[in-house]
Amino acid sequence: MKDLESLSASQAVKALAKREIKASDLLLSCLDRIGQRENVLKAWVSLGKENALARAKTLDKGAIKGLLHGLPMGVKDLFDTYDLPTAYGSPIYAKHYPNTDAVSVALLRQAGAIILGKTVTTEFASFKSGPTSNPHDSVHTPGGSSSGSAAAVADFMIPLATGSQTAGSIIRPASFCGIVGYKPTYGKISVAGVKSLAPSFDTLGCFGRTVEDVALGVAAMSGDIPLARVEGLHNKARIAICKTPDWHLASKETASALALARFTAQSIAKGQVGDFIFPESQKDLRAIQTRIMLSEMSRSLAFEREHYPKKMSVQILKQLSDGAQISYRQYQQDLLEAQSAGAYIDQLLRDELDLIIAPSAIGEAPLLKDGTGDPVFCRSWTLLGLPCINLNIASGSNGLPIGIQLIARKGQDSFLLSAARAFALASPDPILRDQA
Amino acid sequence: MKDLESLSASQAVKALAKREIKASDLLLSCLDRIGQRENVLKAWVSLGKENALARAKTLDKGAIKGLLHGLPMGVKDLFDTYDLPTAYGSPIYAKHYPNTDAVSVALLRQAGAIILGKTVTTEFASFKSGPTSNPHDSVHTPGGSSSGSAAAVADFMIPLATGSQTAGSIIRPASFCGIVGYKPTYGKISVAGVKSLAPSFDTLGCFGRTVEDVALGVAAMSGDIPLARVEGLHNKARIAICKTPDWHLASKETASALALARFTAQSIAKGQVGDFIFPESQKDLRAIQTRIMLSEMSRSLAFEREHYPKKMSVQILKQLSDGAQISYRQYQQDLLEAQSAGAYIDQLLRDELDLIIAPSAIGEAPLLKDGTGDPVFCRSWTLLGLPCINLNIASGSNGLPIGIQLIARKGQDSFLLSAARAFALASPDPILRDQA
Repeated sequence: MKDLESLSASQAVKALAKREIKASDLLLSCLDRIGQRENVLKAWVSLGKENALARAKTLDKGAIKGLLHGLPMGVKDLFDTYDLPTAYGSPIYAKHYPNTDAVSVALLRQAGAIILGKTVTTEFASFKSGPTSNPHDSVHTPGGSSSGSAAAVADFMIPLATGSQTAGSIIRPASFCGIVGYKPTYGKISVAGVKSLAPSFDTLGCFGRTVEDVALGVAAMSGDIPLARVEGLHNKARIAICKTPDWHLASKETASALALARFTAQSIAKGQVGDFIFPESQKDLRAIQTRIMLSEMSRSLAFEREHYPKKMSVQILKQLSDGAQISYRQYQQDLLEAQSAGAYIDQLLRDELDLIIAPSAIGEAPLLKDGTGDPVFCRSWTLLGLPCINLNIASGSNGLPIGIQLIARKGQDSFLLSAARAFALASPDPILRDQA
Repeated sequence: MKDLESLSASQAVKALAKREIKASDLLLSCLDRIGQRENVLKAWVSLGKENALARAKTLDKGAIKGLLHGLPMGVKDLFDTYDLPTAYGSPIYAKHYPNTDAVSVALLRQAGAIILGKTVTTEFASFKSGPTSNPHDSVHTPGGSSSGSAAAVADFMIPLATGSQTAGSIIRPASFCGIVGYKPTYGKISVAGVKSLAPSFDTLGCFGRTVEDVALGVAAMSGDIPLARVEGLHNKARIAICKTPDWHLASKETASALALARFTAQSIAKGQVGDFIFPESQKDLRAIQTRIMLSEMSRSLAFEREHYPKKMSVQILKQLSDGAQISYRQYQQDLLEAQSAGAYIDQLLRDELDLIIAPSAIGEAPLLKDGTGDPVFCRSWTLLGLPCINLNIASGSNGLPIGIQLIARKGQDSFLLSAARAFALASPDPILRDQA
């Protein structure tokens, strides 16, 4: 019964389905780990220990319910839960008890998951950070906005946790914490019951310690059960590295990580791993993403700004006021440019490429006092709605993780997971192989 | 001060902005009308008279707040409101008091609207009808799911009300009640805070008695303020009639209405009004829409089905169980077909056509005992995400209204409103002209 908390989600669900381990024992191991580490990590907003334990015992007795039978999970506190308070990272909602689950949470429970608690999010999934620290070094940020979920999974408190990304809120914390983060295709998982920030981009996903783990999580949250089975890569893939127009911002460590990724990718590549450069007309995708996001935020949070401005941070009020300054005409034009860039990349990912590899973040996690880091290397891919997965590939000079992201065509989630797994398995490095 | 309730929304906001009428007087006129007719119509779930009156008085004293300054409105009881209970048409949520407004409602209030109350929706915006009757004949249905909003606007209880459409829930009740109903382009208005039914289709919009009214409503709900100014049609439009593959279901009255629409459209048409026939490969759009909707519903309402099956109607439980039977593979294939049909129609609406005119419903409103009517003539357009507007064009053999819908390319909302207004103005018939 020792060290059950170190099982990956996919290991755990296999053992649970065969009744080799008990859901209640796994849960207790996770609670032990949380007990030891939470005072440093501060990953959790709330824990529903008793409910979780009761459910674990019920699941241990009953028939296998689904993909995640008996698996304890953390849920980002941006997702409504009927049995745990849901504050969206804001004091405005400090005493908010939803009477329903977010659709994605209901589907997790339907698949047999045990929702152990809610994890720290930044304020409304924007930039004002919560208290969570990086499991690898507690003076650094775990990244945001899905801070608590990423930290808790990286720290073996929980095998699987939900996240959401509007700019870089899954990929960036996964990179900073050295775990697998998966943002599926835009629209794959219903966002109903998750606090809305920018509806054109808000995408749900999850964190795990392996590719198979995040496949399981998104399979259950979306209802796409076949997605859970990560198949081998049938054919070699056409792969390109994309340094993005913001490459000058990347740290040396990120540059090395990308070089290493190019080398590793070669063994699953058809021909040479190439380079993808955004056409001149699309150099501005990052700025377009930022404007659309701010414009939509100013509408999404209109109620809170009207009623509770004093309970909002200076940072977010500035974002809302910046967003309100953007003309609707500009916003519409930006949406059209996004659409046209989307059509371009879709065609490219049919005709010439299967997989793009790009940096996940500027470099290692910044210090806590400097915020949750910059989503700059995620904005374009989020704008385009493409499925992205972060893998931990190296360490930086502070000994903190450096990730890279693999990106595929819209709707090609199943292929992306296969490619990510094959990529990890192709590496001689146990860091990567352990994420397969 | 008499008959203020008969002002259209656009007439009212002009008079309010010039301080020619008082918001409180307009509100009292509406309340009078409601007092006289609600026992027959049963359009309202709740009224917030005192709050509304207090706000009207405040608005009468303060600076002009926005597009809808002082305008009383009805909000479909599928939209969250922080000051009125929100039951989504279901006994499960009978005592649900949200602590926030839906984003669209917050934006209406930001524009100065007064939310007078919540209007009847069918159960979760699906088919199980509420108590509302048709203002033209109380033994007939007003249509659904936005039953109360359509009936209240048609009956002069309120000049403007919100609606939502997943299959045909704006266009059909607008047709049955003889008013203007406007479903903008999919995604135009944030759906956050509105109970989700099928996220691929859920679209918010509104009901008014003129094209200018619904333009005002959607301008405020979306934040696209320039949309409120409905300009004249700059050029004659390329127009086609689409009878749809379900034409055999249309009543004789609907056939006559469409013939009349063809005749009327001629005066704003470039060349002859043509015919658009869905290509053979797209004859099945209606079935595809139905399957996607049922599949998504089975996920969207998973929480309710798990926790409160006994508080759900037999009809909706049947839909959920039908939806759960649809394989994810089928669902994905249907989404791809929808996408490909969308690309086809987008190209057609660039190259060959500006405007499509189609039936809104099978015919007149059915009897109350027979349900809220069939959304068959709306499903394809909803699937394609195109903006649609219903105009009342004729009466049937029972003296009940018959509508037709005008449809434009995705994103061409401003053009659609101009075309609808020009179409109405081009008619010698006061029924149509009064809707301009």
